[in-house]
Amino acid sequence: MTGEVVVLRLGHRKGRDPRITTHLGLVARTFGATKFVLAGDEDKELFDGLKSVCDNFGGALETEHVKSPMAWLKRFVRTGVAVHLTMYGIPFRQAIPSVRRDRPLVIVVGGAKVPRAVYEVCQYNVAVGSQPHSEVAALALFLDSWTQPPEVFEGARLTIHPHSRGKDVSHSDESE
Amino acid sequence: MTGEVVVLRLGHRKGRDPRITTHLGLVARTFGATKFVLAGDEDKELFDGLKSVCDNFGGALETEHVKSPMAWLKRFVRTGVAVHLTMYGIPFRQAIPSVRRDRPLVIVVGGAKVPRAVYEVCQYNVAVGSQPHSEVAALALFLDSWTQPPEVFEGARLTIHPHSRGKDVSHSDESE
Repeated sequence: MTGEVVVLRLGHRKGRDPRITTHLGLVARTFGATKFVLAGDEDKELFDGLKSVCDNFGGALETEHVKSPMAWLKRFVRTGVAVHLTMYGIPFRQAIPSVRRDRPLVIVVGGAKVPRAVYEVCQYNVAVGSQPHSEVAALALFLDSWTQPPEVFEGARLTIHPHSRGKDVSHSDESE
Repeated sequence: MTGEVVVLRLGHRKGRDPRITTHLGLVARTFGATKFVLAGDEDKELFDGLKSVCDNFGGALETEHVKSPMAWLKRFVRTGVAVHLTMYGIPFRQAIPSVRRDRPLVIVVGGAKVPRAVYEVCQYNVAVGSQPHSEVAALALFLDSWTQPPEVFEGARLTIHPHSRGKDVSHSDESE
């Protein structure tokens, strides 16, 4: 049984990063994380947007803003495991078998400038390709290797049914 | 032997999508595509940014802007295979074994509004999770399943060497 998975996004800049950070939150939800912690700027619109997706497509993604991410992280690693995604780290598929699964996991996603302390406090610094690309891609690939995504997102109003040519979406009427 | 892999980004909006589209280009490069085709707004800065990454980290990603993506796509599928990434499609891991590998492949990434014709012209409409999340994540997961990323990016000035705690980057002097 794999423990709870949390995503911590460092250094969010409200004016500059809205779509990237939204994508991180949506990827977290889709691929099995249950909590999204934001550091940097507060961003109510962003949290509202994530909540709206959960309202429509089901599931729950807890959101929280933290003012002192390093304090939060240091507290987390007392009982949990922290994996920092960085292109400078060791290949994620090499690292994953050694990461214990019986504790809560936080995946730390860097922002503009990642303090040196993040590399020290996290038990693992892992790379999804030793190339500059995208924290969204890195998070998705790591989560895809780590978790089983939910088969059903509870409470969905909208459910997409796979289709080879078009859009097949069912709507559940809340009054039912 | 898997054929050439191209990424086609539809509906780019210069003011609104710069970082998302840049991430798509960087993911294309990192995970083994050789060409990035942009439809929607022209964006020289975006192409310059991708070129700069290739100059520094090696490899080559051909870039092209097309004014008529549907005409481009219809021409491509005469000899190649088109896979459209859409959350409405069939699961990508279910689709991949049936996609022939001896022809050039284009992965079509939607923009704001995807014309119905895209669903018709592409031989495959595939989903990376039937949930709203991120075209960047979807592209990365599809490419990761489709290609072997380059082991070496030729001509790199900067090479990152995996490290468990810090940054290990070697610089090749161009005069050598």
